[in-house]
Amino acid sequence: MFNPSDHPHRRYNPLMGDWVLVSPHRAKRPWQGQQEAVDRSARPSHDPTCYLCPGNTRVNGEKNPDYTGTYVFENDFAALMPDTPEAAPGADPLFQTMSARGTSRVICFSPDHAKSLPQLSVPAIEGVIDTWCAQAAELGAKYRWVQVFENKGAVMGCSNPHPHGQIWATSYVPNLPAAEDRQQKAYHAEQGRRLLLDVAEREIAAQERVVVQTEHWVAIVPYWAAWPFETLVLPRFAVRRLEELQPAQRADLAVLLKRLTTRYDNLFQTSFPYSMGWHGAPYGVSDADAEGWQLHAHFYPPLLRSASVRKFMVGFEMLAEAQRDLTPEQAADRLRAQSEVHYLESDT
Amino acid sequence: MFNPSDHPHRRYNPLMGDWVLVSPHRAKRPWQGQQEAVDRSARPSHDPTCYLCPGNTRVNGEKNPDYTGTYVFENDFAALMPDTPEAAPGADPLFQTMSARGTSRVICFSPDHAKSLPQLSVPAIEGVIDTWCAQAAELGAKYRWVQVFENKGAVMGCSNPHPHGQIWATSYVPNLPAAEDRQQKAYHAEQGRRLLLDVAEREIAAQERVVVQTEHWVAIVPYWAAWPFETLVLPRFAVRRLEELQPAQRADLAVLLKRLTTRYDNLFQTSFPYSMGWHGAPYGVSDADAEGWQLHAHFYPPLLRSASVRKFMVGFEMLAEAQRDLTPEQAADRLRAQSEVHYLESDT
Ligand SMILES: O=P(O)(O)O[C@H]1O[C@H](CO)[C@@H](O)[C@H](O)[C@H]1O
Ligand SMILES: O=P(O)(O)O[C@H]1O[C@H](CO)[C@@H](O)[C@H](O)[C@H]1O
Repeated sequence: MFNPSDHPHRRYNPLMGDWVLVSPHRAKRPWQGQQEAVDRSARPSHDPTCYLCPGNTRVNGEKNPDYTGTYVFENDFAALMPDTPEAAPGADPLFQTMSARGTSRVICFSPDHAKSLPQLSVPAIEGVIDTWCAQAAELGAKYRWVQVFENKGAVMGCSNPHPHGQIWATSYVPNLPAAEDRQQKAYHAEQGRRLLLDVAEREIAAQERVVVQTEHWVAIVPYWAAWPFETLVLPRFAVRRLEELQPAQRADLAVLLKRLTTRYDNLFQTSFPYSMGWHGAPYGVSDADAEGWQLHAHFYPPLLRSASVRKFMVGFEMLAEAQRDLTPEQAADRLRAQSEVHYLESDT
Repeated sequence: MFNPSDHPHRRYNPLMGDWVLVSPHRAKRPWQGQQEAVDRSARPSHDPTCYLCPGNTRVNGEKNPDYTGTYVFENDFAALMPDTPEAAPGADPLFQTMSARGTSRVICFSPDHAKSLPQLSVPAIEGVIDTWCAQAAELGAKYRWVQVFENKGAVMGCSNPHPHGQIWATSYVPNLPAAEDRQQKAYHAEQGRRLLLDVAEREIAAQERVVVQTEHWVAIVPYWAAWPFETLVLPRFAVRRLEELQPAQRADLAVLLKRLTTRYDNLFQTSFPYSMGWHGAPYGVSDADAEGWQLHAHFYPPLLRSASVRKFMVGFEMLAEAQRDLTPEQAADRLRAQSEVHYLESDT
């Protein structure tokens, strides 16, 4: 008889409208491939060579202020520019271009060079959340999409360990949120409810894939997770965009993020690398058009077996379909088994 | 005025139906992030510890034969199994599972542990192509999709430098080929021609993104490439699947592959890592349903600036949309400027 913890199967991702291949028995294979470097060196609270620390000078000659909370500035090598001229539409359907306008900003989470998100105090994380919300509101007034995200760790292409994230805004809705938009709209049209609010309710009832649950939020390993320890952070109330969050909901989100990222760090006793980011309703659309949207955050961490062995999304994954080597339920179990005291702060 | 070599813009990928963000000015930013290890050590032609070399014993106790050309065997840690039981369809649209049947095989390209694809002789590469074609025919008789691919280099998760690839067959058409199927069908329904045959003709006429051109084949950096030095290998004749290739077309493909992969190795004077693989029409469909399909191969190499600095598809890319830092035209220029004599074989 079919058994999802033994037999290869596909799971449907209703948020994206695609599938993931789950091969549970495959985690048993030995690993002889690349090992990631694990950085366990302690960092100073201020690094004179870091271009994100307070008071230091950046590559373009600008000096960072002596900031004490968060600090936002325009990326010195922005992938997007606010004033790109319009491109004339091409006649050939095989060679289509559109001009892209937008902006890229950097957000320092803390003046303290040594601390990552789980090591910040809850009020400090609230400050990060408030800044995310304010940026989304400001850029959403000018652009159709605001992508708030964090790349953490060298393995995720992050070139500076100073705690920071990015905010890219674009004059168009990019591929992946456009797919989420279609799927949430279709579900809402059919069911009259929000897809991700239904998911949150079902997951809280089942408690099979819940990692952290607070008064207003829940973090789950989604049923359709592609990355080994991927999680989805969902509000337990209807909300479309970051800036709509109320003070109590923000405070509670800070608690959830601290608990979740602490579990991540504890899993392999390492500063857990990931890309994370927020998806909310696109801007410049009618309320009716955003009806099915529910704000949420994705965490995509690459590690699979240890601090130094990652999952490679290559070959079959790049050419055919994402594939995972343990079930989402197994991943949730592992994360649930972790302490919520950070391994660097415990007394042992 | 809008200038695609200066201004950020999006390009449409008609094969997938999505977009890529091109930020040409961004290649100028300094890189302080992770460096990949570059392995320039010479390898022996036979390594007694390699589980792919002729005569050696694999982890499951089986002994490899003394093969002289290619050698195919079932993957000892297969992601797919031929006999997975059927899963009962679930009632909840948010939690859908289907059972996956299939097989995973390994294909050794050569008994010579030291040689990668560009270092093999043209007849030896023809042998690899013949094996790909025979495997596609055999597995296509049983499964709906056959994914022939190669992961090359430690940075692509390849755990063994012995020249080899993989073949995964599945009882279903995976996400990415399913999207290519939809797009090619729609184009054929509208234009009465094959999308990728039209692309090949336009590119050969324009010569702007052509990297290697032979009698029967052409390798281009596609207009919508996401990876820095991504290429697309296209037949200049109508053909749906690998096994339909005629002897002269196979021989000519061997020439093209040797020339293309030699240029890759010469670009950064390194054994160029990539994932590559073949897409042809799905199996078990009527001829009418496969009408728009054209066989092709994708090469997805991760390197961006040097043998040790890769492009990270993280953050914005994982959450919003693929982004590239040089134009496809610039990438094609760089590849065209390379010699077709392998850097390890030249006399200098
Ligand atoms: O089977 P291998 O080569 O050990 O594994 C490699 O290729 C597979 C198919 O592309 C991927 O799923 C794995 O993540 C990767 O490490
Ligand atoms: O801007 P950074 O942090 O230097 O760059 C990093 O994040 C970007 C956005 O996710 C990616 O496009 C880059 O490939 C990555 O290296």
